[in-house]
Order: sequence, then C-alpha cells, then structure tokens
Amino acid sequence: MAHEIKLVTEAELRRVVPLDLDAIDCVEQAFEKLASGQVVMPPVLSMALPDINAEVDAKTAYVPGLDGFAFKVSTGFFNNPALGLPSLNGLMVLLSAKTGLVDAVFLDNGYLTDVRTAAAGAVAARHLAPVNVSTIGVLGTGLQARLQLIAASKVRPAQNALIWGRDSEKAERLAKEMNTFLGIDVKASSDPSDLVAQSQLVITTTPAREPVLSADWLHKGLHITAMGSDQEDKNELDPAILSRADTLVCDRISQCEKLGELRRALETGHLPGTKGVLELGTIVAGSANGRRNDDDITVCDLTGTGVQDTAIATLALGKVNRAHAGTTVTA
Amino acid sequence: MAHEIKLVTEAELRRVVPLDLDAIDCVEQAFEKLASGQVVMPPVLSMALPDINAEVDAKTAYVPGLDGFAFKVSTGFFNNPALGLPSLNGLMVLLSAKTGLVDAVFLDNGYLTDVRTAAAGAVAARHLAPVNVSTIGVLGTGLQARLQLIAASKVRPAQNALIWGRDSEKAERLAKEMNTFLGIDVKASSDPSDLVAQSQLVITTTPAREPVLSADWLHKGLHITAMGSDQEDKNELDPAILSRADTLVCDRISQCEKLGELRRALETGHLPGTKGVLELGTIVAGSANGRRNDDDITVCDLTGTGVQDTAIATLALGKVNRAHAGTTVTA
Repeated sequence: MAHEIKLVTEAELRRVVPLDLDAIDCVEQAFEKLASGQVVMPPVLSMALPDINAEVDAKTAYVPGLDGFAFKVSTGFFNNPALGLPSLNGLMVLLSAKTGLVDAVFLDNGYLTDVRTAAAGAVAARHLAPVNVSTIGVLGTGLQARLQLIAASKVRPAQNALIWGRDSEKAERLAKEMNTFLGIDVKASSDPSDLVAQSQLVITTTPAREPVLSADWLHKGLHITAMGSDQEDKNELDPAILSRADTLVCDRISQCEKLGELRRALETGHLPGTKGVLELGTIVAGSANGRRNDDDITVCDLTGTGVQDTAIATLALGKVNRAHAGTTVTA
Repeated sequence: MAHEIKLVTEAELRRVVPLDLDAIDCVEQAFEKLASGQVVMPPVLSMALPDINAEVDAKTAYVPGLDGFAFKVSTGFFNNPALGLPSLNGLMVLLSAKTGLVDAVFLDNGYLTDVRTAAAGAVAARHLAPVNVSTIGVLGTGLQARLQLIAASKVRPAQNALIWGRDSEKAERLAKEMNTFLGIDVKASSDPSDLVAQSQLVITTTPAREPVLSADWLHKGLHITAMGSDQEDKNELDPAILSRADTLVCDRISQCEKLGELRRALETGHLPGTKGVLELGTIVAGSANGRRNDDDITVCDLTGTGVQDTAIATLALGKVNRAHAGTTVTA
C-alpha cells in the first residue's frame, strides 16, 4: 500500500548521525532494554559465500515501546579492496512497529553499523574500564580501530593511545591521523605485549583467526573489549584470558557462544560453561556489577546485536527528521 | 561507498513486472538452479511478535551466474485490516553478486513476493497437473487465491474455475471478478468437496491451522498445490493426502518439514520420512518425473523460497531498466 518512506543516503547520515554521546547513549539504552527480557531478537541470518570470498548477515530486533524496528543487511565482500571498494556495505531499513510498513530506508553502505558497533565499545568501556584510563591500546588498524578509539575517548578521555597492527605502516598512519583528530598523544606500537602493559583499556578490532592477545600479558586493572570476532572462525583473545577475567561480559551470551570469543573458550574448556558470564545490558540496568575493584581484570566480548541496529536506526530517523534531511518518497 | 542505486516503487513495479509468463519462466529457472545444488540459500529468518499479532520474515539466496541476489523482508501485521491497511508488506533489495553493494531497492510493499509466489504455483501446475484441466478449483478468497488462479490459467487454460471460502460473500465477489478478468466461467462453490470433485487442479491458498481439504475427496488425476502454509502452525491438507499422493513434491524439503504441509504429515506419522519426496526443481530439471500417469494423484507443497526472490528481483531490475522506470540515486 502506497505510503511515505524516508530515504537517507550515506552522505546525509554521516552529516546528521555522528559517532557522539547521543549514539553511545542510545546504544546503551538498547542494551538495557535487551536485559529487560522484552526484546525479541532472533538469531543472525548468516549466508557464507566462500566461493566468492564473501558473507552476508542480517540482524533485527523488536523493542516494545519504540515506534519502529530495524532490519539490517550487511555484506562483506573481501575481494572488494582489489576493486578499490570497501569490503563492508549494506543497508538498514526501519519498519513501523505498528503496521510493518517501511518507514525509512538508510542507504548507508554500513555507516550506521560502524557507528553502533563503535558505540557498543564505548558502553563497555563506560561500565567496565577503570575510572582512570591514561592510555588506550588498540589492536588493529582498520575502520573500527579508528572508531573504537574515538568512541572510547568520549567515555574515558585518555592522554595517550597506542595502536598496533600486523602492518606497521598502517599503524603509523592511523596513529598520526588520530593524534591530530583527538588532540592527544597517539603512537604506533611495534609490540602488542608492550601496548597491553602500558594500557588500562585495550580494544581488539582485528579479523584474527588466531589470538592476537596473550593471557601472559594480563595485568591488574586491565579492561579488554574484543569486538573483532563476529563469525564462527574468528578469535582474537587467548581463551585463557576469559577464564582469568574477574568479570566476563558478552553483548549477548547466546550469540557470543557461536560467533564471539566465548566460543573458543568453551570449546577449549577454558570455561566450563556460561555460568557467571554476564550480559552487558544487565550491568547497564544495574542488576549486575561491572567493575567491582580497581585491580579487577574485565573482559567484554562484542559480536554486534540487532537491538543496536534498531536503536541507531530510531535515533537516525529522529535526527534526520529534525534536520529536514533525507528525501520523502511515496511508494 | 557512494554508488548508484535504482529505487523502484510499488506502482512502477505493478506496471513493469506483471504476473505473466516471463515471471513464471524466471521462477521456473530459479527452481532448476536450486536443484543444481549450487544455490546458497540459508534458512528463513523468522521473528514472531505474538504480543502485537505480527511476524517478520527474511529470505535470501545466492545463485551463481546471476549479477545479483535478493534480500527480502516480509512483514505480516495481522491487526492492519482494522486500520484499513493490508497485513502483508515489506521490501526487496537486490545486492551485487560481485561487490555486495546495493544495486536496487524495490519499495514494493510485498508486490514482487505476490508475483513470485503465484508464479511458483504455475510452475507446479505446469509440471504436475494433468495436461487437460477443464476446471481449476481454488480454496481461499484472498490475494493469492486471485493470483494463483490467474497464474495457473496461463499454463492450464481451463474453461471453468470454482472458488470456495469460509466467507461465501468473498467467494462470490472473487468469482465475479475473475469471471470478468479471465473471461471464463468462474463460480463460487459452497461445498469444498464438490469443488474438488469437479476440479483436476486444486490450489489451496488459506492461512488455515486445520485442514480444509480431506483425503476422502481425492480422485484419480487430481493435482493439488498447497501454498498457504508458511509457518509452523499452519496446515491446509489432511495429512493422509500426502501419504496417498503418487508424487509428492516440495519447493524445498528442508523448509517444508518446518513450515509446510510436510510438517504435519511427518508429525502424525502419515509419512515415515522424506524418502521419495521430490523437490520441484529436480522435476523442472528433468532429473525426476513429475506426473507419470493421467490417473496419478500429485501434490505440491509450496512454502516460498529465497531463490524465487532472487529470480524475480533480477527479472524486475532488467525490466525496470529497459522501461527506463525507477529513480537512480547516488548513495
């Protein structure tokens, strides 16, 4: 049935929906709602296309009380860089929670996903990192390395940051860029163990299939957020790290068991089960403790959830409308 | 990354992509490709929202050799009629099979789904119904009752059609409309057993949760296509019908086991398993026989597959481009 649909391009979204405290707060609220048990969030639809080195994922979540719910399609075509294109693309659709009609189509090429993913890292840092973080360490040099550092800086304004990557040139380049962008001292590190030693908050942002962070490097007061793994074959953290954490947190336990760091820790027996593992939303909601002591080692395993998509899409439509951005079509 | 995306509205799609032999042939080819074993088609993502009497489904399928693949979101909000809105809506996205970038967004409110669903019924009729069909019987009076009759008439041009529904007024109205539209003798039937007795091809199009077609009504030479069930609690056919069929065909066995008529037949023990059950594509491909004898009773269980969506979306983009329809946006 013909009705009005708001169409918004990536360029407009970049202008109107920056990675800021609004985005972080809205994702934080999404996790709180997830903890309430009222959110309906089916498992991720995942289509692996190994013959063309690609994967397609879809996520959704219905949150009672919100006007709409997002349906997000993400594509990862890993031969794209050879064509001069980014690997990750996709779009997000906001559907009316009252009628199921399409309210908005965000032709964002994955931009809103980038924002809500980084925002989740900031939520984890807000509730789990030590209050005083002088150095943030980032493993990885991709887009999320950049965005996670920016987001973390908004909730833990550090004086220093360190960036390590397999490609030291990329690490140098990103450090230089972030140095200017954040106005703090950002350096590339050639030694991830040294990076971890100097940092109170470490964020892993790699597509690693073997751990990039060893349990030998853990120290008192460290918080680690691992956000790189979102597939069954990815793994960034030495599984012993998860058993040594004083507090171990997942965005969604049932999803991290399959797609996150939790998977390998369970498979290798480093964790006997998920008893004692917390979900981020329960900490946000105050029904579980995040960091209890300054000396605690805390770990957060993020795989990305549909409720974040619904939250950011809802925020985006509000901002787009207030900015009179986007195009209204009747379709 | 900014690139060109074709946007097409429901009104444009209705003009450019009618339910015709092109649509039927393209869906037929999709089933043939599915039978080749090269199609990647993950299970349906299904989100039930019982509190608001709604459901959301997503389907996709990657077909090697095609330029794109569809990602389809369907919404069923069953309180909509009280608001003067159709229950079923949604949209279809065509993504590049080379880059994963969005090639086209079909703001179709479910129209392309309607077409590809009816087209599958015609494919089943083409390969399974007797060559000579003088009467087509339809159980149900909704949109698919209308479209299935139109589609079936294109491959089995009958002189008569009968329509039965729980609401006899709706059946009368649809019969009158179809009488004019098809230019054949279409009558409402008040007795589904009589309808079946008079028909060589019967199509069930209801959302029934208890059978509307009894095994006692079967007769030699009958073909039945059951397309109404697409959820775990739906059931149109007396499960004994499936055990009595000479040839039993599914669009996708693994899906019909969960969402189609096959589910109840297996649960009730009317079928001991799926041995001997065929998939429609294998018949289209010629690697299995459809109807072998005029007297055979044949049954086809359709639940709707992602490969049909990819096929119709690909057809639609070609037709839209040739008609210079749609709007190109850079996003």
